[in-house]
Amino acid sequence: MASGKELCEGVEWRIRVVDGSSEVLVPPTGLARKVWLRTKGLISGLGMKVRMFLKQAWDMGANDPRKVIHCIKVGLALTIVSLVYFMRPLYDGVGGNAMWAIMTVVVVFEPTVGATLYKCLNRVCATCLAGFLAVGVHWIASQSGDRFEPFVVGASIFILASIATFSRFIPSVKSMFDYGAMIFILTFSIVAISGYRVDKLFDLAHQRISTIIIGTSLCILVIMLVCPIWSGQELHSLTVRNMDKLSDSLDGCVRLCFTNSNGEDDQKLQGYKCVLSSKASEESMANFARWEPSHGRFNFRHPWKQYLKIGASMRSCAYCIEALNSCINSENQAAESIKKHLSTSCLKVSSSSSSAIKELAESVKKMNKSPTIDLLVEEMNSALEELHNDLKSLSHLLNPSTTAENQISATGLVPFMEIIPVVTLASILIEISVRIEALVGSVEELVKESEMKDKIVAKEEKPEGTMKALQRV
Amino acid sequence: MASGKELCEGVEWRIRVVDGSSEVLVPPTGLARKVWLRTKGLISGLGMKVRMFLKQAWDMGANDPRKVIHCIKVGLALTIVSLVYFMRPLYDGVGGNAMWAIMTVVVVFEPTVGATLYKCLNRVCATCLAGFLAVGVHWIASQSGDRFEPFVVGASIFILASIATFSRFIPSVKSMFDYGAMIFILTFSIVAISGYRVDKLFDLAHQRISTIIIGTSLCILVIMLVCPIWSGQELHSLTVRNMDKLSDSLDGCVRLCFTNSNGEDDQKLQGYKCVLSSKASEESMANFARWEPSHGRFNFRHPWKQYLKIGASMRSCAYCIEALNSCINSENQAAESIKKHLSTSCLKVSSSSSSAIKELAESVKKMNKSPTIDLLVEEMNSALEELHNDLKSLSHLLNPSTTAENQISATGLVPFMEIIPVVTLASILIEISVRIEALVGSVEELVKESEMKDKIVAKEEKPEGTMKALQRV
Repeated sequence: MASGKELCEGVEWRIRVVDGSSEVLVPPTGLARKVWLRTKGLISGLGMKVRMFLKQAWDMGANDPRKVIHCIKVGLALTIVSLVYFMRPLYDGVGGNAMWAIMTVVVVFEPTVGATLYKCLNRVCATCLAGFLAVGVHWIASQSGDRFEPFVVGASIFILASIATFSRFIPSVKSMFDYGAMIFILTFSIVAISGYRVDKLFDLAHQRISTIIIGTSLCILVIMLVCPIWSGQELHSLTVRNMDKLSDSLDGCVRLCFTNSNGEDDQKLQGYKCVLSSKASEESMANFARWEPSHGRFNFRHPWKQYLKIGASMRSCAYCIEALNSCINSENQAAESIKKHLSTSCLKVSSSSSSAIKELAESVKKMNKSPTIDLLVEEMNSALEELHNDLKSLSHLLNPSTTAENQISATGLVPFMEIIPVVTLASILIEISVRIEALVGSVEELVKESEMKDKIVAKEEKPEGTMKALQRV
Repeated sequence: MASGKELCEGVEWRIRVVDGSSEVLVPPTGLARKVWLRTKGLISGLGMKVRMFLKQAWDMGANDPRKVIHCIKVGLALTIVSLVYFMRPLYDGVGGNAMWAIMTVVVVFEPTVGATLYKCLNRVCATCLAGFLAVGVHWIASQSGDRFEPFVVGASIFILASIATFSRFIPSVKSMFDYGAMIFILTFSIVAISGYRVDKLFDLAHQRISTIIIGTSLCILVIMLVCPIWSGQELHSLTVRNMDKLSDSLDGCVRLCFTNSNGEDDQKLQGYKCVLSSKASEESMANFARWEPSHGRFNFRHPWKQYLKIGASMRSCAYCIEALNSCINSENQAAESIKKHLSTSCLKVSSSSSSAIKELAESVKKMNKSPTIDLLVEEMNSALEELHNDLKSLSHLLNPSTTAENQISATGLVPFMEIIPVVTLASILIEISVRIEALVGSVEELVKESEMKDKIVAKEEKPEGTMKALQRV
């Protein structure tokens, strides 16, 4: 016991030794050993962390090989652009500014085609605009004499940078030209300032623009030719996947409540949480998808915004499933006889609603109006009707007395409090089916709009299209 | 009629004229006039749009003057950094690379202190690391002979760019070093490639690092000295504001349902939607707040993550309010007598819960445990008890017959279906109060953790802190 205590307090003693306020109780070899042990512990802990980190990274790569492909694409594009530096003729053309091409590739290369196109177009347009403007400002500054030149340049930078920064806060500008505004400030400042030192101002502007065009073209080629990932396609798949998840968790939650089966997959039940949390990614994908040319079954100007509406409808269903879930957690106090009474109709409503959502997912996937959706909605409504009737007849099972809870077994009647959880569940189910009808509406609108866009694209090749536009004047 | 038709088809005729396939039916003055009218229409339409856009921008600036201040700060920082170019001594020091300082300011300057610090630190560290690594790679490449040099450099760029890009997908790296990884690729590529052409490699790396340090220091000075906006403070205010909104809309919704008053402010009722949609901004603010030094009442390492937990608790309440809202929209079918029966206790529950949330907001605001919160929760629980009793006694009002709906007026009893909406509302209210208790728990945890951090900060100035840390070995 005593030696154990000594061991425990050893460290504290040593600290006092350092202070010089106490005697040496532990031999110096002990100190060295402890330092060694501590270092070993630190290293092994660090090694563990590194191993965990590498495992996490490996799993991520194995789960989504497209991420690995993206990394290889970035490496490829950068190595190709380095050729600009290595090959003499190209180098002579764009001079030391070839570095701008490298910078463009690093900054502009994004995982999806839409995001890359957005950045490329913004970068090129903003660079051109800012370059011309800066040359103009420089001309004005040079006319105003040597003394005022710095002031004119400085004031123009201050004003234009402030305005461009402010424009980035405006939602419509932010969604389309946020990156462009930043590049505008950057190019304008650099070209306007360089004008004061570098005499070959036009050369600088020209070189910067041409290197940026080299960089962006290379990015666009690589991103579109090597295993392209389209924002639009991603948004489309995400919507379909989320619908499937919604359908699974709705069905699973109600089944769990009435059958008490523990066989339900917990991950399946929690699927609606993905729907709740995918708003931000849906918005950014829809934003980038607008920049993409037609790919696969999607035309340029496919109604991407409609996907956001579908997403909002799905989320409104998911909120209700969240509320439903809380019912399930509190439903242990519900009477078995009531549960039995409502179970058939509730299960019917949930299974018909979830198969309606599944059918909607199929409809979005194939991008045509499902022939069976009307039938399924009708089925859902007749199941709802049945649930209504069952709810109405529930009052027969009810014990009108509030205090006679010990009479239950004798009469088979249930106190009012015990029906509340099940009634709440049923009424949330009814609300969910109302929201599913709204979802049906937004999916149908998407299908209709996409068919309309297809027709417009087909028509635009004929002269009538332009003529009609002129007639509208 | 005939002339009207001619007028309508005039445009079409003109197009055929252009084709040369038809006679001139409309006099040339008409053509000119129409072109003029059309141009005028276009210009006035464009003018209208520009005016609308400017009005939108003006309103935004007027509503949040801090955005305008941010823009002026960006202009200021850029103008100051231009001095680097204008002043001869500084210019001689860092050479033509002074442009890097400008670029740093443009790219790094963000509206909040946290975001700017995050970018600054990432930029400086990544540039240093990449610079040293690139010099090392260049030395190895130069040892391998002229023939292999491009291959060594190219391969190193390919491998490092791929790895760094991959690391940006890993969540823990993404939240802390996303920007740093990009800057690492950028600097490494430029310095490694330049090594092939520019002989003064060390000079390049040194100049780039020193200009970036000039740029970042300037940014940090301007962002922290001129009307600083702290991410942490913003997150704190957002949380308090959202709690107030949640409280208002909970109280408003229930009041609207039972009193049928149209005097409720619709904007107040919809406040919970802000809570639903603020997840992304909360996360980014908490992420940036970690980088901020102590400011106001917040220490460095204030428990920012706890705000995310509070946000999640608030959202779980908001989901229920969403479900509650749908009850209100369908409650027109609820019987008046039932509503009257439950209205007192429901209103009591909602007002006590909403004042509990208000008190929590106050507690977060002042960052100390509220003395009255326990009392308010108790009050809420006693109101819940009352609601339970009212629900129990509801069965007296119930008409056990499902078909005798015409008997209502005679007996004063209500058919079962008409109580469902109110019962659902009551049971959602009960669920909301359960979730408010969870919210109370997370707010208390925040207050406790923040007090603990305060103590640790106070203690760290004394030697006991380090001694305890050593004792734990």
